[in-house]
Amino acid sequence: MTAFKTVGIFGRVQNPGVRETLKALVHYLSKLHQDFFVESETACQLNDEKVNIISREDLGAQCNLLIVVGGDGSLLHATHTIIEQDIPVLGINRGSLGFLTDIHPTELKKIQSILAGQYTIEQRFLLTATLQNGNQAINQEDALNEVAIIPDSVPHMIEFEIYIDDQFVCSLNSDGIIIATPTGSTAYALSGGGPILHPELNAIVLVPMFPHSLNSRPIVINAEREIKVKITHNNKTSPRISCDGHAHLSAKPGSTIAIRKKEKKLQLIHPIDYNYYEALRSKLHWGKKIIAS
Amino acid sequence: MTAFKTVGIFGRVQNPGVRETLKALVHYLSKLHQDFFVESETACQLNDEKVNIISREDLGAQCNLLIVVGGDGSLLHATHTIIEQDIPVLGINRGSLGFLTDIHPTELKKIQSILAGQYTIEQRFLLTATLQNGNQAINQEDALNEVAIIPDSVPHMIEFEIYIDDQFVCSLNSDGIIIATPTGSTAYALSGGGPILHPELNAIVLVPMFPHSLNSRPIVINAEREIKVKITHNNKTSPRISCDGHAHLSAKPGSTIAIRKKEKKLQLIHPIDYNYYEALRSKLHWGKKIIAS
Amino acid sequence: MTAFKTVGIFGRVQNPGVRETLKALVHYLSKLHQDFFVESETACQLNDEKVNIISREDLGAQCNLLIVVGGDGSLLHATHTIIEQDIPVLGINRGSLGFLTDIHPTELKKIQSILAGQYTIEQRFLLTATLQNGNQAINQEDALNEVAIIPDSVPHMIEFEIYIDDQFVCSLNSDGIIIATPTGSTAYALSGGGPILHPELNAIVLVPMFPHSLNSRPIVINAEREIKVKITHNNKTSPRISCDGHAHLSAKPGSTIAIRKKEKKLQLIHPIDYNYYEALRSKLHWGKKIIAS
Amino acid sequence: MTAFKTVGIFGRVQNPGVRETLKALVHYLSKLHQDFFVESETACQLNDEKVNIISREDLGAQCNLLIVVGGDGSLLHATHTIIEQDIPVLGINRGSLGFLTDIHPTELKKIQSILAGQYTIEQRFLLTATLQNGNQAINQEDALNEVAIIPDSVPHMIEFEIYIDDQFVCSLNSDGIIIATPTGSTAYALSGGGPILHPELNAIVLVPMFPHSLNSRPIVINAEREIKVKITHNNKTSPRISCDGHAHLSAKPGSTIAIRKKEKKLQLIHPIDYNYYEALRSKLHWGKKIIAS
Repeated sequence: MTAFKTVGIFGRVQNPGVRETLKALVHYLSKLHQDFFVESETACQLNDEKVNIISREDLGAQCNLLIVVGGDGSLLHATHTIIEQDIPVLGINRGSLGFLTDIHPTELKKIQSILAGQYTIEQRFLLTATLQNGNQAINQEDALNEVAIIPDSVPHMIEFEIYIDDQFVCSLNSDGIIIATPTGSTAYALSGGGPILHPELNAIVLVPMFPHSLNSRPIVINAEREIKVKITHNNKTSPRISCDGHAHLSAKPGSTIAIRKKEKKLQLIHPIDYNYYEALRSKLHWGKKIIAS
Repeated sequence: MTAFKTVGIFGRVQNPGVRETLKALVHYLSKLHQDFFVESETACQLNDEKVNIISREDLGAQCNLLIVVGGDGSLLHATHTIIEQDIPVLGINRGSLGFLTDIHPTELKKIQSILAGQYTIEQRFLLTATLQNGNQAINQEDALNEVAIIPDSVPHMIEFEIYIDDQFVCSLNSDGIIIATPTGSTAYALSGGGPILHPELNAIVLVPMFPHSLNSRPIVINAEREIKVKITHNNKTSPRISCDGHAHLSAKPGSTIAIRKKEKKLQLIHPIDYNYYEALRSKLHWGKKIIAS
Repeated sequence: MTAFKTVGIFGRVQNPGVRETLKALVHYLSKLHQDFFVESETACQLNDEKVNIISREDLGAQCNLLIVVGGDGSLLHATHTIIEQDIPVLGINRGSLGFLTDIHPTELKKIQSILAGQYTIEQRFLLTATLQNGNQAINQEDALNEVAIIPDSVPHMIEFEIYIDDQFVCSLNSDGIIIATPTGSTAYALSGGGPILHPELNAIVLVPMFPHSLNSRPIVINAEREIKVKITHNNKTSPRISCDGHAHLSAKPGSTIAIRKKEKKLQLIHPIDYNYYEALRSKLHWGKKIIAS
Repeated sequence: MTAFKTVGIFGRVQNPGVRETLKALVHYLSKLHQDFFVESETACQLNDEKVNIISREDLGAQCNLLIVVGGDGSLLHATHTIIEQDIPVLGINRGSLGFLTDIHPTELKKIQSILAGQYTIEQRFLLTATLQNGNQAINQEDALNEVAIIPDSVPHMIEFEIYIDDQFVCSLNSDGIIIATPTGSTAYALSGGGPILHPELNAIVLVPMFPHSLNSRPIVINAEREIKVKITHNNKTSPRISCDGHAHLSAKPGSTIAIRKKEKKLQLIHPIDYNYYEALRSKLHWGKKIIAS
């Protein structure tokens, strides 16, 4: 008996650690008689003819749970693949820093409890960045961690204005700006000097990058607000819009990037003993308990 | 016709600027035939026999609106006086930095509109710090800006543990910790490296002060959570609990400070053209508009 | 009688402010019967047939003093043009922030004293960045402000190692690193969180950019040391070497960038009433004097 | 044969770790037939009748090398004891963070080489803080790490002016200011946001503490300059002068604290394989070598 009829398996990175865990996972799920598919590129690493293979595009339609083997980067990648279908995601950590991938490779037996329905589910919101020319949307992309407006080529300053719900906030001359979710607050935004936002907060943090003015500070706002970044005509190049580290879109001088909370959320599965602060402590080497309880 | 039957007037600081504005305000309200009382110590500055005087203790019971003349410090002070009675407060700025005191002394005519009912009211939450010995509450105090746990005498490090809703977060060795509301995020917490929190956020920021570990970072959490700071027995002195800059309470080694959102809120009155971002821009010298709208 | 037989005039930026000051300067020097040349591109802005024109290449050989009209960017530019010839440089500030350009456009009369020999001369050192493949130098470039090792395309992290006088210092995963002179410490390095270095210091500051690890901190070292940045083979793109904001060189994975103090110095001319701290105060809006002296 | 005729032994902290290492050290030096004295309070921990005991005051006169067992705090303490006599100091680390105490308790055999003359000696400069009323010196104290001007009681802001070689630098409203040597740059100044200064630098860093203005930044200056901190008459309490964490002196409003490099230096002994960057890496958890050499 299982809480999830069919499980999908996804591993983006190809390295011996990921391969070992993928094999162990396939073996473990088979033993539990759990139905599962392996994403086709992931399957290349397995070299196992018995597993059922599925294309990345079909993962969302065919699976009720996606297990990702890798680091936070792989889980970000998987999120973009299945976000429209509300498939819950569970991460097995093979990366160096795992805020999203809870299960340690040596703890696969925790998966049995999860399949038996013993888990918590946490919703993590995404941002949608829409590139606009005037009021006309040209293109858009999602981000689980952050949208960053960055120079097309370095070294260059960008000049832009920020609006929140169409209220002018400030103009900035800087290397860019990071607009991060609570999930992304422990990633790029943190290295830029931003605060940690607890994942239960419905909030967004704006972190200016290398601002010309020393008075620029991270600001945390309600996630229901719409942020607009207006690229002034004074820019000689077209800044790029980086969503979770992928910068496909260019924003011409005069264009606007509107950033808004996406309706669909990532359904992140945790084992029942999950503790956010414990994750923070171990990732950031925070001080351990002194007082015996 | 007025939205507020009786107005109370309060000015904590004694200086020529405050006195001048107090006089102008008394003159202005008299001309409008608005009923008002002047707090007794404030009245000493006026030297005007015709004004009705009221004790600080009775302000909350007798007035429907409190007008504070001074800086943010004076408004903080007034808040502590009337917080239990839900009296709305309006600030006239005679201090150097005014995030809470909107009205410029040259704009007294804005008060007429406010008295006529044209204003917005914004709720700002406070924190209550309760000093506990075990589970027994010993004493408590409120803070609109921040609760700071600080050494009794400098220079001393404090060793303490932080819990959020009874979950252990981390231990710290530092000069202390600042726990600030959104209102306080632009005050002491900002100079300690904390982010700006928009006042509409139901969030609290924890800012470690001069932490021994470089990995310590400001963290923003849901304001509904209860924070406990446990002073370890290793401390040789008793750290103090500073609420809005007043440190009356000492926390012995082994005691706990529980910090929780207060139910009563400050009712802060703004003129209808009030804009939070404009206040930020002018106080922090942020970049002005470049694009003509 | 003049301390400088022939003066060169250089203005890189073309805008009405620069043009106005160039004209005033030409008029002023003519009145003083001072010999001068105008750099050929600069002369286009003047549209004055009577002035003697000189090519940029010949500035160093023909002039005994170079007067730069513009901001710090223009003075940086001029420095690269004349650095090999030890020509002293004086800046007239038409930019927004001028740490290097002392003379205000309304104070041209200060130039008369300088031409009469009343000035101080301050040596500002430069860095030379040499791109090496193994021990073989491939290319090199100078920087008055800073050498920055930055990603070829954003967003990308760079992995590199730092050595000082061939001693291993640390490895870093970051958006790059800024290696700044005291002159550059108030420019890009400052917006990256670096300290201000007084110009008389023979020191260099290394500022990691958006470091993955929160323990990374700016470090200040003796300017006589040689810094090597080794680009690891794990990088998939070739980081670029930005010298004073110009990034002509690419450093392939496996290559090394050696950064060393240049022998030739910028000879920066100041009026005798020049005060470094006054410049800092006015540029950074530092607190003014309170105590009457 | 030994490079140091008589060794002094000093351990300030009383705990099992220090005691164990003191015993091992006494045993080790006896075996080497090295003459040594144990400081009297330190000797209480040993409970060994055979050791020669010496008062703290006589350490400097009677010994040619001082071995300190403990952390950096103990070495700071020892420095104040022997600084006037030019006795070299060697530290055996029993504390948590040791930038000054090189020898690990398990490496006592390194001491044999040092006694045989195989060591490097590094000079670390101190600061002298002189409290002045007008031009009259009232009192003075030394600091190896830092002089900090701090409030007498928290929470309080201090208002003061900074002068360097009698040139006005800025006024500040803050929790105070830290003035640190390179040695102290990895201590309190680092937790206040200051840069790391390599110990070979003849430089001092000024780090404002929780400055009211966001434009305040650490500034590094030549160690030959004299810094004056003038406490304005606006202060209502007397700030204290903390030297290496001990705050014996109070600076009344109107008084001046002059800070100047001390002539006598700490002679710090290192084993010949000592490497400053390795110390930084291990203390601050900096990135390890990636490229095989």
